Amino acid sequence: MVRTAVKVLVNGYGVIGKRVADAVIKQDDLKLVGISDVVADWRVKMAQAKGINVYASLPEKVDEMKKGGVQVHGTLENLLRDGDVDVVVDCTPAKVGAKNKSLYEKYGIKGVFQGGERHEVAGISFVAQRNYEDALGKQFVRVVSCNTTAICRVVGGLHERLGVSKARVVIIRRAVDVWESSRTGIMNTVVPELHIPSHHGPDAQTVIPSLNITTLAAKGSHNLYHLHMAMVELKNQVRVEDVINVLESEPRIVFVSGSDGVEGLNSIFEISRDLGRSRGDLYEVPVWYDSISVSHDGKEVYLIWATPNESNVIPENIDAIRSITELESNRFNSIKKTDTSLNVIKKLY
Amino acid sequence: MVRTAVKVLVNGYGVIGKRVADAVIKQDDLKLVGISDVVADWRVKMAQAKGINVYASLPEKVDEMKKGGVQVHGTLENLLRDGDVDVVVDCTPAKVGAKNKSLYEKYGIKGVFQGGERHEVAGISFVAQRNYEDALGKQFVRVVSCNTTAICRVVGGLHERLGVSKARVVIIRRAVDVWESSRTGIMNTVVPELHIPSHHGPDAQTVIPSLNITTLAAKGSHNLYHLHMAMVELKNQVRVEDVINVLESEPRIVFVSGSDGVEGLNSIFEISRDLGRSRGDLYEVPVWYDSISVSHDGKEVYLIWATPNESNVIPENIDAIRSITELESNRFNSIKKTDTSLNVIKKLY
Amino acid sequence: MVRTAVKVLVNGYGVIGKRVADAVIKQDDLKLVGISDVVADWRVKMAQAKGINVYASLPEKVDEMKKGGVQVHGTLENLLRDGDVDVVVDCTPAKVGAKNKSLYEKYGIKGVFQGGERHEVAGISFVAQRNYEDALGKQFVRVVSCNTTAICRVVGGLHERLGVSKARVVIIRRAVDVWESSRTGIMNTVVPELHIPSHHGPDAQTVIPSLNITTLAAKGSHNLYHLHMAMVELKNQVRVEDVINVLESEPRIVFVSGSDGVEGLNSIFEISRDLGRSRGDLYEVPVWYDSISVSHDGKEVYLIWATPNESNVIPENIDAIRSITELESNRFNSIKKTDTSLNVIKKLY
Amino acid sequence: MVRTAVKVLVNGYGVIGKRVADAVIKQDDLKLVGISDVVADWRVKMAQAKGINVYASLPEKVDEMKKGGVQVHGTLENLLRDGDVDVVVDCTPAKVGAKNKSLYEKYGIKGVFQGGERHEVAGISFVAQRNYEDALGKQFVRVVSCNTTAICRVVGGLHERLGVSKARVVIIRRAVDVWESSRTGIMNTVVPELHIPSHHGPDAQTVIPSLNITTLAAKGSHNLYHLHMAMVELKNQVRVEDVINVLESEPRIVFVSGSDGVEGLNSIFEISRDLGRSRGDLYEVPVWYDSISVSHDGKEVYLIWATPNESNVIPENIDAIRSITELESNRFNSIKKTDTSLNVIKKLY
Repeated sequence: MVRTAVKVLVNGYGVIGKRVADAVIKQDDLKLVGISDVVADWRVKMAQAKGINVYASLPEKVDEMKKGGVQVHGTLENLLRDGDVDVVVDCTPAKVGAKNKSLYEKYGIKGVFQGGERHEVAGISFVAQRNYEDALGKQFVRVVSCNTTAICRVVGGLHERLGVSKARVVIIRRAVDVWESSRTGIMNTVVPELHIPSHHGPDAQTVIPSLNITTLAAKGSHNLYHLHMAMVELKNQVRVEDVINVLESEPRIVFVSGSDGVEGLNSIFEISRDLGRSRGDLYEVPVWYDSISVSHDGKEVYLIWATPNESNVIPENIDAIRSITELESNRFNSIKKTDTSLNVIKKLY
Repeated sequence: MVRTAVKVLVNGYGVIGKRVADAVIKQDDLKLVGISDVVADWRVKMAQAKGINVYASLPEKVDEMKKGGVQVHGTLENLLRDGDVDVVVDCTPAKVGAKNKSLYEKYGIKGVFQGGERHEVAGISFVAQRNYEDALGKQFVRVVSCNTTAICRVVGGLHERLGVSKARVVIIRRAVDVWESSRTGIMNTVVPELHIPSHHGPDAQTVIPSLNITTLAAKGSHNLYHLHMAMVELKNQVRVEDVINVLESEPRIVFVSGSDGVEGLNSIFEISRDLGRSRGDLYEVPVWYDSISVSHDGKEVYLIWATPNESNVIPENIDAIRSITELESNRFNSIKKTDTSLNVIKKLY
Repeated sequence: MVRTAVKVLVNGYGVIGKRVADAVIKQDDLKLVGISDVVADWRVKMAQAKGINVYASLPEKVDEMKKGGVQVHGTLENLLRDGDVDVVVDCTPAKVGAKNKSLYEKYGIKGVFQGGERHEVAGISFVAQRNYEDALGKQFVRVVSCNTTAICRVVGGLHERLGVSKARVVIIRRAVDVWESSRTGIMNTVVPELHIPSHHGPDAQTVIPSLNITTLAAKGSHNLYHLHMAMVELKNQVRVEDVINVLESEPRIVFVSGSDGVEGLNSIFEISRDLGRSRGDLYEVPVWYDSISVSHDGKEVYLIWATPNESNVIPENIDAIRSITELESNRFNSIKKTDTSLNVIKKLY
Repeated sequence: MVRTAVKVLVNGYGVIGKRVADAVIKQDDLKLVGISDVVADWRVKMAQAKGINVYASLPEKVDEMKKGGVQVHGTLENLLRDGDVDVVVDCTPAKVGAKNKSLYEKYGIKGVFQGGERHEVAGISFVAQRNYEDALGKQFVRVVSCNTTAICRVVGGLHERLGVSKARVVIIRRAVDVWESSRTGIMNTVVPELHIPSHHGPDAQTVIPSLNITTLAAKGSHNLYHLHMAMVELKNQVRVEDVINVLESEPRIVFVSGSDGVEGLNSIFEISRDLGRSRGDLYEVPVWYDSISVSHDGKEVYLIWATPNESNVIPENIDAIRSITELESNRFNSIKKTDTSLNVIKKLY
């Protein structure tokens, strides 16, 4: 029996949406129906130039988008009503996904939400290597944010294998995305999140309830990649090699090294561009090998990694689609399939 | 008769060198023999990971590079001596190319130098659409810098078609490259070039001797793309449409528009990444369509463009190889061939 | 006869307002009645902590300001009605001054507006050393923006003394002010003003109608000081010494030099802080001595200066008050008095 | 008996040296003999313009400095030999102080070193409110770095009063100083210190040996102020009010609040400039009041503060001079005297 490809629409063609759309195109068991949005700027025009069908997320935006030079193929609601979509990946701005949910429910369409939505919108918060099976067959799932995803990969891996008693992670966030850096950036400053803990710790617990974690966050004066500095207390004594072994065996984590000249987030961005992937994307979480340290008593691990804020959740989105549509029932099969399609690797250089 | 591909070695695997290497690989009439360098950091290791042969530019660096984890295939001089190379594209740091020249002369190897070398090193300074034929069959040619290339494309086009009496261009330079932004950057400042005119004006005259031009330059607190603001006095009255017509007919120039949401260099970088090319490269010079203005008397044109400092000279390097090896005798044939191979376009979106 | 000090209120306690307030306090012929504003953040609380009386610019803000911890002494309108103010220096955000004008007219109060208002709001645009006498006794005057002020000082001086036939100035602007750099900044980009000429050229003509000038502008990724790069065509041949002589004799212009290690805007900010003035203010326009150049034919001058965006208009505001209140009838007397009080100097080091 | 003022020379007129010099001038029990340096750039010329005597730190630099336009009053060694100096405050670059030590020993001159020197150079590392008395009468003392000073003030205060079992502090450092931001900055990146713990933790222990502390550090893309994010485990349960009480009673710590609009380091810099002190200096450590949090079990405290890297060690330098010269035997007397002279306050607004 030949299985028909699952029909996917991406609602919201921003930083995440455009990357999800491209990743869907690369899957042999998924088919991109198109993307929907509400504006007609260069970003949407580039989708069109690539041959992607563009729809209006809201009927009242059709005229404006047409006037702006976009050939609108119809509205999101009409698409859903006509049964042309199996799964919507909702990449609209934070809190908008929650509003869209009723539309997906109305037509019985499955939906993947992003980390800008609250956990309750989907009921399941998702990181493939941690809880893929929990989302199997569900109508909705939420792929957590880039920061939470990275924490779940790294600290979650340590927790699963070595037993974490208390994790503390400080996040130096990129301030805004590249495209919006001409308007809403920060300059020559650091802007701390004064509410402690920052939302990332509790958010990681929606994926890994048993993880005891506290996070603090601040925005730095840069617009690419977050930096995470982790201090992880363990239930038992470990050696540096134990930590390395865990991270080596976890998918979507790679090592970089200061001794190879990888000095900062800028170096990692240069590496990611040298990989030759579209947009210079980095789906993996690069951990500085030479930052991995253990306290004298062997009970606390320190390590530093970069979180590729634009792209590390892209493979999770693909896995999330596979989980809720039951295209694959096993996390490792889905991860392997996704990683092969996107050329996710375990060694950058 | 089947013509054998020209054998190319790239000496210096930095910002320009790695891009030239990748571009050479994409040409059906060129063959990349390998790259040579003097270090063993992540950059060289990535070349190796891509399957490119790595050589030592200097014999005394072989041991250090091997120790650093690079499989060194031999030395540059041995390669040249053994006749395994037809053309070296010298992408070593500024002024190092001049020192390398005697080595190329010793073995009668053709060489393409970059804009960091003085004009006299090669004798011919090159921008394909301006003076391709001047380099035909020569031993050496110098591809001018990103800034000079952009000026020669845009102002050179206006000069050729409309007649420039006096051009003034102010260049707001990116301060340093991404990879070195963890060491030698500038912060929250603008650093002017106090020597006026800056070297770019006289450099453009090495390509277009009849061009009357003065340039001023300053480094801005950003690390990607230069911004050029041009004030061009013409010999005759023109209208905005005349300028647009010239720029539309010139290769490697594209339009972007503030009305499409293209607000700054950051927007253009986002566009370039959305093109899906390796590293988010932009070979074209994007001119802001809505910046093009003409003075009341019709005798002065104003316009603003971005200069993609990492990549706009890459197609020129390919054309330069073709010119000195006489693979193509006509500029338009070479430009077309290069642009097809690199997917250079006339419309970004 | 002892003349009573002119009673001044500063409406709007932002970047300019707080500096004008402090400058007024230093004048023996002016008396600061207080400041008025609409919020109760740390900025207004610092005015209060300094012992300055705080008023509410709008009656509906009184309660909110009190609740926020500010002791509100009354409303702006009550102050004006009761005859407690001779001059309002309106430093409210751009375009708000125009709305406030009717209030000042209602009570016959004189007003000084800032460069964020259109020329027509006051009818006279003011730079002390260019047109002090034009504002004598008038009800309203507009101190032009920092950029326009700097142009009028430097290019205006050249025009008055050497005769400018055509000036071109490119302005690399600081993107936003320090206090707002946690919200509305730009990052790793340059954002050009696509409308050419930028408003600065025509604005300079409101002060110096005979000046033929075109300006282009772009925002740079820094938050302190603008950089101006000027290309000035003259009616007659000049030598570099002629330019230096003009600038040496003009008030509020100083020299800095690359050969003394003054490399960029950052160096000038460090110098300005070393002067020991409040806030590290710089009232003078520092011109790079070693940037001053003359074209081969002696008919075009090139030079580069920094424009201290927060503070170079402060002395102009004081002079503007003296002009409209006729405290001094001669520009040089007022400039001298102001400059002595603020310690404005002709030699930084 | 009238006590003669202690004669102080500042060796090294950089970011710290120039501030120490100005602070010494403000003390009635100290007298600034002059400053010594090795260059003749604008910085040294500004000292001269202020009327400060300039000496050459090295005899071989005399000619060069004179040629550069500085009136050199003599050499450092001659000054020391002739008995004209009681204390040298050595503010030369890191590791240079260690070399200078033998000169001070040769002439039996007391010396204050900075945090760029190792603890062993002086044998006593100093933060006034922690260990003033330890330095009484000693020949040498080392004022620890800005970061260590801030940690000793804040975490040291908590430790002394509430009992710290384990402190973890993450430091987001300013990358370089303002004056050098045109050369050696970082751009659009974060550069982590890969060696964990960073040196700050062990350095704090040179002042407070009983403090159990681990620090991690990274350079951010800004050039003013460090940001510290602290997670402090306590021996006993505490409430937020307990922490506030401790910090309120400690000298040289102040509160700022996000609810007053203090959003980031930029806001604090604006506040510091509004204080009207020379250079916009901030001697106090501003702690975000609304960041102070306590874990559910009451055993861990979280808080965030800014470290004014240029100026928070200035009062410590003055106290250090008083301690080694025994001008005051009690820490509180010295701190009070210093703070009065520098206008150090407990409430910013």
